[in-house]
Amino acid sequence: MSEFGLIEITEKDDVFTIEIAGLNGKTHAGLARVFRRAHESDARVVVVTGKDKSFLAPEKYEFEWVKKLGIYKDMLQIFKEAEDIVRDQINCEKVTIAKVYAPGAHSMGASIALACDFVYASEDATFSDPHLSGFGVPPGDGGALLWPTRIGLSRAREFLMTDRACTAKEAYEIGLINKVAPVDQLDAEVDALIKKLLSYDPLGLKMTKKWLNQYLQQNMNIVGMGSLFAEGMVLASGNFAQKTEAYGKQLEAEGKRKG
Amino acid sequence: MSEFGLIEITEKDDVFTIEIAGLNGKTHAGLARVFRRAHESDARVVVVTGKDKSFLAPEKYEFEWVKKLGIYKDMLQIFKEAEDIVRDQINCEKVTIAKVYAPGAHSMGASIALACDFVYASEDATFSDPHLSGFGVPPGDGGALLWPTRIGLSRAREFLMTDRACTAKEAYEIGLINKVAPVDQLDAEVDALIKKLLSYDPLGLKMTKKWLNQYLQQNMNIVGMGSLFAEGMVLASGNFAQKTEAYGKQLEAEGKRKG
Amino acid sequence: MSEFGLIEITEKDDVFTIEIAGLNGKTHAGLARVFRRAHESDARVVVVTGKDKSFLAPEKYEFEWVKKLGIYKDMLQIFKEAEDIVRDQINCEKVTIAKVYAPGAHSMGASIALACDFVYASEDATFSDPHLSGFGVPPGDGGALLWPTRIGLSRAREFLMTDRACTAKEAYEIGLINKVAPVDQLDAEVDALIKKLLSYDPLGLKMTKKWLNQYLQQNMNIVGMGSLFAEGMVLASGNFAQKTEAYGKQLEAEGKRKG
Amino acid sequence: MSEFGLIEITEKDDVFTIEIAGLNGKTHAGLARVFRRAHESDARVVVVTGKDKSFLAPEKYEFEWVKKLGIYKDMLQIFKEAEDIVRDQINCEKVTIAKVYAPGAHSMGASIALACDFVYASEDATFSDPHLSGFGVPPGDGGALLWPTRIGLSRAREFLMTDRACTAKEAYEIGLINKVAPVDQLDAEVDALIKKLLSYDPLGLKMTKKWLNQYLQQNMNIVGMGSLFAEGMVLASGNFAQKTEAYGKQLEAEGKRKG
Amino acid sequence: MSEFGLIEITEKDDVFTIEIAGLNGKTHAGLARVFRRAHESDARVVVVTGKDKSFLAPEKYEFEWVKKLGIYKDMLQIFKEAEDIVRDQINCEKVTIAKVYAPGAHSMGASIALACDFVYASEDATFSDPHLSGFGVPPGDGGALLWPTRIGLSRAREFLMTDRACTAKEAYEIGLINKVAPVDQLDAEVDALIKKLLSYDPLGLKMTKKWLNQYLQQNMNIVGMGSLFAEGMVLASGNFAQKTEAYGKQLEAEGKRKG
Amino acid sequence: MSEFGLIEITEKDDVFTIEIAGLNGKTHAGLARVFRRAHESDARVVVVTGKDKSFLAPEKYEFEWVKKLGIYKDMLQIFKEAEDIVRDQINCEKVTIAKVYAPGAHSMGASIALACDFVYASEDATFSDPHLSGFGVPPGDGGALLWPTRIGLSRAREFLMTDRACTAKEAYEIGLINKVAPVDQLDAEVDALIKKLLSYDPLGLKMTKKWLNQYLQQNMNIVGMGSLFAEGMVLASGNFAQKTEAYGKQLEAEGKRKG
Repeated sequence: MSEFGLIEITEKDDVFTIEIAGLNGKTHAGLARVFRRAHESDARVVVVTGKDKSFLAPEKYEFEWVKKLGIYKDMLQIFKEAEDIVRDQINCEKVTIAKVYAPGAHSMGASIALACDFVYASEDATFSDPHLSGFGVPPGDGGALLWPTRIGLSRAREFLMTDRACTAKEAYEIGLINKVAPVDQLDAEVDALIKKLLSYDPLGLKMTKKWLNQYLQQNMNIVGMGSLFAEGMVLASGNFAQKTEAYGKQLEAEGKRKG
Repeated sequence: MSEFGLIEITEKDDVFTIEIAGLNGKTHAGLARVFRRAHESDARVVVVTGKDKSFLAPEKYEFEWVKKLGIYKDMLQIFKEAEDIVRDQINCEKVTIAKVYAPGAHSMGASIALACDFVYASEDATFSDPHLSGFGVPPGDGGALLWPTRIGLSRAREFLMTDRACTAKEAYEIGLINKVAPVDQLDAEVDALIKKLLSYDPLGLKMTKKWLNQYLQQNMNIVGMGSLFAEGMVLASGNFAQKTEAYGKQLEAEGKRKG
Repeated sequence: MSEFGLIEITEKDDVFTIEIAGLNGKTHAGLARVFRRAHESDARVVVVTGKDKSFLAPEKYEFEWVKKLGIYKDMLQIFKEAEDIVRDQINCEKVTIAKVYAPGAHSMGASIALACDFVYASEDATFSDPHLSGFGVPPGDGGALLWPTRIGLSRAREFLMTDRACTAKEAYEIGLINKVAPVDQLDAEVDALIKKLLSYDPLGLKMTKKWLNQYLQQNMNIVGMGSLFAEGMVLASGNFAQKTEAYGKQLEAEGKRKG
Repeated sequence: MSEFGLIEITEKDDVFTIEIAGLNGKTHAGLARVFRRAHESDARVVVVTGKDKSFLAPEKYEFEWVKKLGIYKDMLQIFKEAEDIVRDQINCEKVTIAKVYAPGAHSMGASIALACDFVYASEDATFSDPHLSGFGVPPGDGGALLWPTRIGLSRAREFLMTDRACTAKEAYEIGLINKVAPVDQLDAEVDALIKKLLSYDPLGLKMTKKWLNQYLQQNMNIVGMGSLFAEGMVLASGNFAQKTEAYGKQLEAEGKRKG
Repeated sequence: MSEFGLIEITEKDDVFTIEIAGLNGKTHAGLARVFRRAHESDARVVVVTGKDKSFLAPEKYEFEWVKKLGIYKDMLQIFKEAEDIVRDQINCEKVTIAKVYAPGAHSMGASIALACDFVYASEDATFSDPHLSGFGVPPGDGGALLWPTRIGLSRAREFLMTDRACTAKEAYEIGLINKVAPVDQLDAEVDALIKKLLSYDPLGLKMTKKWLNQYLQQNMNIVGMGSLFAEGMVLASGNFAQKTEAYGKQLEAEGKRKG
Repeated sequence: MSEFGLIEITEKDDVFTIEIAGLNGKTHAGLARVFRRAHESDARVVVVTGKDKSFLAPEKYEFEWVKKLGIYKDMLQIFKEAEDIVRDQINCEKVTIAKVYAPGAHSMGASIALACDFVYASEDATFSDPHLSGFGVPPGDGGALLWPTRIGLSRAREFLMTDRACTAKEAYEIGLINKVAPVDQLDAEVDALIKKLLSYDPLGLKMTKKWLNQYLQQNMNIVGMGSLFAEGMVLASGNFAQKTEAYGKQLEAEGKRKG
């Protein structure tokens, strides 16, 4: 593990790349610092992706760590990190690109992807936020902020309040993501986007990103902060550990559990 | 008529059902209290629908009552109710589902449907807001708040400023509603949604609903309140009674008028 | 040139028509007054279009004037006008319709079209905002305000941060514009819309427009004003003249440059 | 106890009076309905005061009930009521006046007083919000919303983050309240205000109240809702019962505890 | 009368001066254009004052014109002007100074003064907004926007909901105005302020004004627009003419009526 | 110099202390990281003060570095830091206290002090923001955000648009700061505040701070971001170096210049 846990970073040719291999305690703490590091770097573009052509989904969570969210003291530390992750992502002045391979971006993985300026996905990737349907809590780590900002409140309700997952193709059609590509062409598509972005005036690019982002900053104030603490309130209810145990077993039964 | 006018309520298995049979003075006053009643109930889900597989549209209005909106003193009472209806709908902590059968949700009926968290419609239902095209007034009872929040300002202008109605199929495609189903399958679709919602952690569900709703609360502040009183100002102009008379006659000629 | 530069105005049958033939210094100053004139007129509908069935695009810019944006003192005057143009458009109490013929609405032309209540375009028209990709500056004269308000932040980023242009057909499908018509039917479509709008209660129409517009007023506060001055900051960088020179040459090479 | 618990209501001469004698479970539930009742009444002015020339302060709380806030299931019910109380107060279309006698308005009592349009207090009354200093929780039931809206963020921090109480005289000088009067003249002062308010055009009065209130509605969105759930999160921490026990004992030692 | 009615303008040494002698129809229309004229001028500072060392108060109103607000068609025109006046004042990029002599700034006069960046008053001037107490309507032409922004909601309610007038001294102490001076020193004080403002970097000054003004722009969205139309709704009630007649007579009896 | 330039940090007994000795390039970069460091620490309270009983004022600036703000490339880096400083201060979850000794908090020093939750000052300290009057630029590094949030727009304009400084006593009276104390008692007063804050429930304290702070987060969106870039636009004008040179000489003549 690096200083950021299961996250590897590389900085090359004005591009800062963040590769996430899974989620455990150290990695969550790492996410709370890695976007700040990217912000402070000299890069102009940030790419977030999963290790070995993947992305982040509950099946990569270490469930023993997830259960800590049900322990009040641990939850407080994790929530501090959760707020930092969201804020750092939307305060990052670089253009950010999520490169999403199968199985796709789910739960916190979806929040990390959707907080990026651009989301490019392979055809076999899917998107969902099982905060409510899986873990029994409101989507406070970014879901309530990011899905409605991208696809409107009406459609967002459907994905956040039911257990429906969204294929990359549908995600593209409803405007959740910006590009869907065959799995073997996704790297090339992302590289083409990077090349274009780097060809622009650096300050012009930064200011365009920053001011479009103000819509997110505003929604962070209206919904983002509050939904986070609403999630905290539900986590404290004591039902969480049990819900999580059951959800973990379900994923295991589906051959999806890791930790 | 019940204490809510032409509205029947039932509460069973955590579901609070509101069936609307038409619109007259007592029913309008009833709408200003029934969503509060639902909010205060123990149910977790609220279903709003029309009596005998229908919904609410001007053809179910008692036009003698509608004309009272042109009388200042009556209008004031009706406006107090109108504000309460909108506020109670968006303050209701239960998940709300509109089940819309033909002829669909139109004018105030559209506002009541679109203020729900989910809108499910039968294939033959349509949606429109003839506030301006029919009655000559701005869509202050919810239209200016709800259509743009669901489908964006650009498309909303088209439906609110022209007389175009939207079929259920188109409504689904542009994200105005969440599901379109054959008329004989709509009940089953709504029941499946209810079953899923009731399977979630109750507090998690409530908090998810509440915080997604904050986008509506914000737009209520920016547009909802003001558009209501702008409608009041136009109603006071004296043109309203005449417009309404003509519109009622038009509906009658089309075989659609009730009251 | 009229008192508004390369702009001709006509007022007839409650319709105020603004025809733009190109963009130079006097015309930019004219745009900063012509929407106010329309607002103060007795018309109820405003139509904005290009002279001889066109619209406004960089190929109609007088590039010697554009380069003045790189000179600080000139830029200040032009920015005062730029703010007035946006504010006057969204403060205009008349319903505004953009009638867009090929080559379509691009850069400031796109801002002028998209600030209208309705956008009707011929099939061969396209839409784009090359502020960043062409001129190297953020889309401060309306782009950051108007594209996200119409099509959501996710899709808007794609058009504002890459050089992709949007055909009229795609623009219609994603909700950027309200109607696409064969070139020889566009006038008739716009006339039909005008006829419908003029059939409504004048105050009802005005109030509907005004309150739907409040969403724009709000976004003007959150993003519009700031993005304008962010553009000013980038313009002052000294890179602008060179960028513009290069962009002008590129357009020339493509047979598109005028001034 | 009335249907509202330790609350008596009277309606006479267009004035709806709410007299609060203490706080226990039934009364809290009563507060969640009594302002709605006032709103639905025909009165034009609402007066909120304490029974026998007092107001509401922790020394009137039934501490066994307060401790229920530390029990998750009870807390949820109480929080639903807490949100309804705040919303109903700011949604009430009548002009509301708090008549505050010693010992004054403290903790939830302060929120109830400060949510009124006018606050009139006797010279010996004081104001404070010991949510943090006494109970160890953030001021989520109205404090974070109401003190800053009345006296600005800078001064509000002092009262909400330290244990400083404010005398009626200081409260008047910093703009927290509207009038301070000798204890035997307070009734007369409030009556004079009521007389003046009732002399106005009823609709003019209602609209003035309603639109000034929009500042509160906006702050409800930005801070009010979120601070409520932040309080809920802290309450769930398990420290609350112990804090409350200690605070109750302290009040008892000071001869101030009731329940 | 000038083209602006009872308003004289002078432009000299970078100062644009607006002197108002009274209020009638042509002057109200003039106010709806004169701040735009000032904005378009080359001046850097705008001074608004009353003719012959005065300011604007109902005693200078032509009451026959005021009564037109009770006639629907006239009211619409006057409301269009009213919105333009507020918007033009807060959109004016020059620093604006109100120089207020006795009898002071009252009703619309108060709105015009308080919309300026600086308010300087002579010791014998007073401030009040008798929209509700005199005319029976909500303070929609600026009162609900400007008083709370300057002195907070709590104090503003007192001046807008009762008939209390504020002396210049008290106005200074509560932060409603920026300076109070003996009547024979007011000109000198304003001149000193102008001299200081003109000594600054012109763009720095303009930007400082513009961005501080954003607080007003935001409150215009939240309260300003809506309160205007709420006033319109009340004006249409038919009580207005009678209220105004009575108020005019009262002013006459007090020796204060002009028109 | 430490890793934060002329800034020393100590962490002891749950208090993180930041002592600023002056301002140069490395220190400005240090300010852009030190509040984040404090946020990530285990402390519960942060104290910001000046070295050797002082605070931060232009007389402690290294003027050769300040002039770099007139060089575009340097300005960009400094502006990135400036945004980080403001954001990190208002995102810091610890309670922050400014302990201000003479000569007080001026220009950027004022922004750093006023962004804290509490400001305690010695009697001989003063406060001012000479961005406009001294440097000729709008107060973009926090002034336009912080002064109005603390003392209202009306009074803030006076301090931000003229060269008036505010004594500690006046600052206390108008609510700009929270406490004024004799110079030899200031440490004790701050210690007493710290002791009180540390006696509270840690999570209760953090949540109280965080949610009161949301008012600042909201104003950051409405005014803070935009005023920063407006300052950038003015800095780019080329007048800045000359203004700064003159201002530095003036401070030198007054015996106040350091760098």
